[in-house]
Amino acid sequence: MSESLDKLQQLLKKLPGLGFRSAERIALHLLVEKPETLAPLVEALNRAGEQIKPCPVCGNLSEGELCAICEDDSRNPLQICVVSQVSDLMALERSGAYRGRYHVLNGKLSPIQGIGPEQLNFAGLEKRLKEEAVEELILALSNDIEGEATCHYIQDRLSTSHPDIRLSRIGFGLPSGSGLNFADSVTVRSALEGRRLFHP
Amino acid sequence: MSESLDKLQQLLKKLPGLGFRSAERIALHLLVEKPETLAPLVEALNRAGEQIKPCPVCGNLSEGELCAICEDDSRNPLQICVVSQVSDLMALERSGAYRGRYHVLNGKLSPIQGIGPEQLNFAGLEKRLKEEAVEELILALSNDIEGEATCHYIQDRLSTSHPDIRLSRIGFGLPSGSGLNFADSVTVRSALEGRRLFHP
Repeated sequence: MSESLDKLQQLLKKLPGLGFRSAERIALHLLVEKPETLAPLVEALNRAGEQIKPCPVCGNLSEGELCAICEDDSRNPLQICVVSQVSDLMALERSGAYRGRYHVLNGKLSPIQGIGPEQLNFAGLEKRLKEEAVEELILALSNDIEGEATCHYIQDRLSTSHPDIRLSRIGFGLPSGSGLNFADSVTVRSALEGRRLFHP
Repeated sequence: MSESLDKLQQLLKKLPGLGFRSAERIALHLLVEKPETLAPLVEALNRAGEQIKPCPVCGNLSEGELCAICEDDSRNPLQICVVSQVSDLMALERSGAYRGRYHVLNGKLSPIQGIGPEQLNFAGLEKRLKEEAVEELILALSNDIEGEATCHYIQDRLSTSHPDIRLSRIGFGLPSGSGLNFADSVTVRSALEGRRLFHP
């Protein structure tokens, strides 16, 4: 139909969660239905692209020298929560349940996909453990093979280099508001293994 | 977390089909996971925004003086298919079942939403009916109150100004590959009303 529309649609289709139809719908929205929304979006993309850099300490998004969490003195510097990606960090922040610092690995170990320790931000983590007085490391990595492998790797390294640091992994089990009949069997198994004693 | 990220996410959230989570996912994809995809997307948005204009004849998207369909001499100029929006035109083109011209109204009549004949591209349609030798008008408007009202309006105008032009409306009924048990009752009613005789 139109070369520049095709090109735009192809790029939109590559964004996560968008398919052919939704890319077309968004392109037509921006070009025909609400053309006044195009310029502000382009400006916001440009601004965010220029201003947002990874925090040199933890790997979170940052607009200044450090990210908002590393700069916040009220956050507990003795706890570091290790996450695979920034969106995991955001989910934890939304819960409001954590007041320590973070470390973003930018992925999980996956020999099949060729992701070894060198591809992930482990060097930054070890540097922090040397320089900061960390007492606890919470591994908030997912309940799959890659998450498992990444946890084991960290445990191996830590047990020799920093045997004094407490290491824990987030709990797995039934999500809130759901029933056993809706859960897959890996989740059911995790829920059983992660059972907590109520009464001796 | 970050002002420019928040701003970008708010604008993405307003795009059709995107919610809070998908906007966040796309923003992080463009800024953190695949930052190399940001600049090409911005460029494609800018280019499409500059180059794509509505066709002055039919209202379809166009990159030149006229749109690709109005410029295509192999398309039947005696048939005009009236659609509500460009995405409807694209769906008809994808079907490959139509080889005439189009007219995009840019909406449907809706007194509740304050959309009267003046807000739609009726003036352009009447001008074409005067100037072009149109024989048939196919109304490809949806099966709802607004589509119904728009069809009646066109029928009223046409019956006095151009009583010689054939007027038809696309068929409604069961979609291909679906069963009656999956259809809503308006569709079932339309399918019954639109039944075709096989045998006298």
